[in-house]
This record gives sequence, structure tokens and C-alpha cells, in this order.
Amino acid sequence: MPFTDLSIEELHDAALARRLQHVLDHKTKPLGALGRLEPLALRLGLILGTEAPALRQPQMLVCAADHGLTARGVSAYPSEVTAQMVANFLAGGAAVSVLARQHGLALTVVDCGVASELPPQPGLLLRRLGAGTADALAAPAMSAVQCHQAIANGREIVRGLPGNALLLGEMGIGNSSAAALLLARLANQDIDACTGAGTGLDAAGRARKRAVLREVLARHAQAAAPLDALAALGGFEIATLVGAVLQAAQERRVIVLDGFIASSAVLVAHALAPQVVQRCVAAHVSAEPGHALLLRELGLEPLLQLDLRLGEGSGAALAWPLLESACRILHEMASFESAGVSRRG
Amino acid sequence: MPFTDLSIEELHDAALARRLQHVLDHKTKPLGALGRLEPLALRLGLILGTEAPALRQPQMLVCAADHGLTARGVSAYPSEVTAQMVANFLAGGAAVSVLARQHGLALTVVDCGVASELPPQPGLLLRRLGAGTADALAAPAMSAVQCHQAIANGREIVRGLPGNALLLGEMGIGNSSAAALLLARLANQDIDACTGAGTGLDAAGRARKRAVLREVLARHAQAAAPLDALAALGGFEIATLVGAVLQAAQERRVIVLDGFIASSAVLVAHALAPQVVQRCVAAHVSAEPGHALLLRELGLEPLLQLDLRLGEGSGAALAWPLLESACRILHEMASFESAGVSRRG
Repeated sequence: MPFTDLSIEELHDAALARRLQHVLDHKTKPLGALGRLEPLALRLGLILGTEAPALRQPQMLVCAADHGLTARGVSAYPSEVTAQMVANFLAGGAAVSVLARQHGLALTVVDCGVASELPPQPGLLLRRLGAGTADALAAPAMSAVQCHQAIANGREIVRGLPGNALLLGEMGIGNSSAAALLLARLANQDIDACTGAGTGLDAAGRARKRAVLREVLARHAQAAAPLDALAALGGFEIATLVGAVLQAAQERRVIVLDGFIASSAVLVAHALAPQVVQRCVAAHVSAEPGHALLLRELGLEPLLQLDLRLGEGSGAALAWPLLESACRILHEMASFESAGVSRRG
Repeated sequence: MPFTDLSIEELHDAALARRLQHVLDHKTKPLGALGRLEPLALRLGLILGTEAPALRQPQMLVCAADHGLTARGVSAYPSEVTAQMVANFLAGGAAVSVLARQHGLALTVVDCGVASELPPQPGLLLRRLGAGTADALAAPAMSAVQCHQAIANGREIVRGLPGNALLLGEMGIGNSSAAALLLARLANQDIDACTGAGTGLDAAGRARKRAVLREVLARHAQAAAPLDALAALGGFEIATLVGAVLQAAQERRVIVLDGFIASSAVLVAHALAPQVVQRCVAAHVSAEPGHALLLRELGLEPLLQLDLRLGEGSGAALAWPLLESACRILHEMASFESAGVSRRG
């Protein structure tokens, strides 16, 4: 099966890490004074395998699909919004469109299974697995065949994209439920701690969502292995992103996480191949409570904490200039020697 | 005296605030889903007095000077580093040079009183008040005349700069001591809580620095009014930045704070004219412990928390793209109506 090639090189070039740290420590600044930017620069160097990492042709990949579970009232918005927002992404009016333009990120939108079919158009890839997943309270959200196909799709899409950095984005009314379910199952977390307001549920809505998700987990108690959990709990867009993450990791691209849902795809990929996380940068931690739990599970520290809760890839795009800065510091800053600056007394 | 014109308009256009909030709330995203970017967009709109704020020709102003108090061993680096780093700023090799280039920020460096005089060169303004301040343990760091002149210099420099946004930067070995002293005095904080490692003191160095600063405060117990405190406790670069901040606020420019030292200039300006803070954006909170205290005193929430402790304007430059994003969201994002997206169910 196409996703079963999970061989991902370990990034453990201690000599390169030492060289990168040496370069950072000799830049004209007190040791460590650029804070979180310094380990970020180190990580980018290790991922790209060079003391002078350069980010080329960054790709924002936004995967969209609908969720059968929305029939149970788990979201504040109707499913039709998924297709409408995909159209908005392509028309350039969504937050991710605006931010991708600002930062020169190429935007690719994938219909992984939006309820109402979208007409073919530039910038939109059609990789539909169905008209939304099944209602996970009644059946697995997708079949094993659909799940494998989604992962294969994600791999194939990334193979076709240029550049050495992939930013993850998603759209799908109801998909914070799928992410919460995956986190609860794969990280053994209580579902209540994984469940938030999504696009804006009130307290009663959150209570209903939690009750539904608890039932879904009980219904699929046997779905414990990563791919079984992914198929049962769903998200065509999440499964497609799992494939994208695996492929990007194998190709040694820099992978920039976005919010809770995009990160849940990394959680699944990590369960399949733990080395994936070495290629990842956590752009931000969102206001959705499960996101902090999820990032802790992955051992990733977020760059931004801006109370975002939009998804789409918006947080990944907002953090992007920090990755560029980290590379520029390695390339462009003078050393104490080259600048003739005295070291500490 | 030139700085005594402290008339700064209150920004209290409730109708504009309502219009800006209305625009934000009708963009294609759940209410508030862009988190901290939304109040930032609102603030930029209020400062620039428009529903469609656009940042033009942003100016990074880096003020540099030396400190007599370094004779007391309050810094890990020797004073000669100030002049060397100014040369590095101008040569393009410092962190702030690299980040200003990345984000298209015009860089102006001001010699406000570096110990060893620098040759005139492009990009460097000579506004020297002396060859470093006096040792504040022995005398006021500067005279009232020097203090007034520094403020007048800052005003005149900003009057000559184009654009509608000012980013604050500084360089001066020993200036985290001046900032700590100003915070302790103007905000009635314990000096120990205001004092950190600066460029990298060890525990013994920090203890010595705290003891020295406590003595300095006792020595200048009478210097309670903002300008008296500024003159006594020092910083030619800080005093020049106070003038820059007052002028920028009067001209209704967006003022982007950097770290602890640049922020201490805003604290002084705020003590003279509280409306200043309405024009300010806190770029980040640094690893220097006084910075969080100072921002709380000003009522400003930082955008970034990256454990930076470099100064120079580096944090202001790193946060700059977020200000651009906030404006673009107002300008470029579609509304629910324009994009034909359904509202919540």
C-alpha cells in the first residue's frame, strides 16, 4: 500500500548541529540573545542539512473536506460553509489567501471531499474521497480504502510541489471534532480536555459536542492503531494531510504546523513514523484547548501565541517570517571576528 | 523648552472604533478567530484615524550611547562594544540590520553619546550629548540641559523622518541598568525585580548589579519627577528616544516598542503624557524580567514571546509583519456578504 513506506531518515547529524551552534554563538550578539530564533535556526539547518539553510518556494497546502458528524450538531456553522470558504480561498478573500500573498507563499487548495462538489478551477486540486465523511457516530468516518487513498493523495500532491517547505492548512466544518477524537485516542487524553469551542460554540454547544465525541470514541473503542483511528474518527482532509506530512518528511522538507486540526494530522503521521516531528516547526498554539496538549505530546514549542482559532493555515502563514528571519540570521549576521566586535569582558 | 509641548490628542473616536469592529466582525471568519490580530488592527485603525490603515515607510530608529555606570561593573561587556556595534549596524551585519532589510524598514542610527566618537557616515546621525553619561553613582547621569537637549534631538529627528510608523531600537552597554532604575523609580517597583542579566551576567554579576543600582537609587532619592529621574538615572539614548516617542505620538505615528530599554523610554514619555501609550504597540516581551513589569505598567500586551534579550530593535523588527498582516486583514479579506459565505447556524 502506498503509505506503508514509512522509512524516514533520522536527523542526528551531531557534527552539523555543533557547526550550526558554533555559527550562532559567534554572531554579534550575546550568547542565546536571539532566544527562540536560535534553536529554530538550528532546526532549519538540520532539516535542510546545511549550515546555510535557505527556504525556497514555500507551499501552503490547504486541504478541505466535510464531516458527517456535523449532523450531530458539533459545529456552530453549517457544512455548506466548507465549500463557500474553499471558493473564498481561491478568490483570494480568506485570511489564508491574504497572508499567503503577503509572504509569497504559493497556495494550493485541495478538495478532499467537500459535501457539494466544486467546479474545476485554477489553484484547486480535486482529490475527492466522497461527499464528506460518514457520521462517525453511526459508522467509521471512512473506509480503510478511502483512508489509504487519502494518504496516497497527500503524498502524490507533495511530490508534485516545488520548494523545500510545506505549510499545512485545512478547512472543514466539524473538523475540530475529528482532531479532538484523534488526540484523545492516539495520546490517551480525556476527550473533554481535547474538546473546545471550535468556530464558536457556546457552553451548551460545547457540552453537547463533548457528549457526542465521548459516544463516538466508545463506538470505535477497537480503533486503536493509528490508521484504524484515522479511518474511524475521520477527516478526509486530515488523512490527506497525513500523507502530505509523511511525504514532506521523507523529502526532508520543513513542515510548518498550523492549528489544532493541521497538527492532528502530524500527530497521526508521528504515530506512524516518529521521525516526522524532527522536520516540524509549530507555528502557534491556538485558543482551542486541545492544541496545547497536542503540541506537548509532539514535543513541539509553538512560536506564536496569538489566541488564533481560525485554521486555514493562517497561523502557519503568520509565523512564516520568523523562519525566514532565522535563516537570514545564519546567512547575513556578522561574526565577532568579521565585525571586529569585542567579546565579553 | 522644546519638550514642554506635551499636548497629545486623545484617541477616543468611539464611532471609528465601532466601524472598525464592524468591519472585523464581518470578515469571513468566526467572530474573534484572528485572536490578537483583531485588537491590533483596531488599534492601528484608531492611531491612523481610518478604517483602512496602511503603514507607510516604517522607520527603525536606533539610538546609541554609553553609560558612566559601567565603571561599576554592571555589564558583561566592555563599553567599547557600543561603538563597535554602531559600526556593525551601519555595515549591515547586526541582527537589527538583517531584520530591517528583511522587512523593508529604513534604518537610522543615532550617536547620542557613544564613548569613542564615530566618523560621520551615511545612515548615522551625530547628536552627541557627551562621551557617555556620568557615573550615576557619583553624580546625575546627565545635566538637565543635556536631558532637554536629548529630548529635543529625538523630536527633531522624528520630524525629519518620513512615514507613519516608528520602530524603536537602542544600543548602549550598561543601559539595562538605566532602564531598571527608571522602572523602579517611575513605577515604584523594587529594584531587584527590575534587574536582570542584561547581556549575560552570571548570578554574582547580577547580585553586584542589584547592589549598585540600589545605591544609585538612594543617591538620587530626590529625583522623582519624570525628567529629574531621567537626568539622574540616565541614558542619552533613552532620553533621545523619549523625545522621539513624544514627537511620533504628537504626529500620530504608530510607535512599535522593542525590548526593556526602548520600552523604558516609553515609560518616561508616558509619565509626561499618558496619551502616548494609545499610539504604542508592544512588539514582544523579553527575557529581561523588568520588561514584563514595565509593559504591565503601560497596559500593553506584547505580540511575541520569544525569549529575546538583544535589544537593537530586533524584537520590533520581528513583530513588524504582524502589523502589516493586521492592516491587510482589514483591507483585503472578504466579508461574509461579498464572498457569499453563510453565517453561523
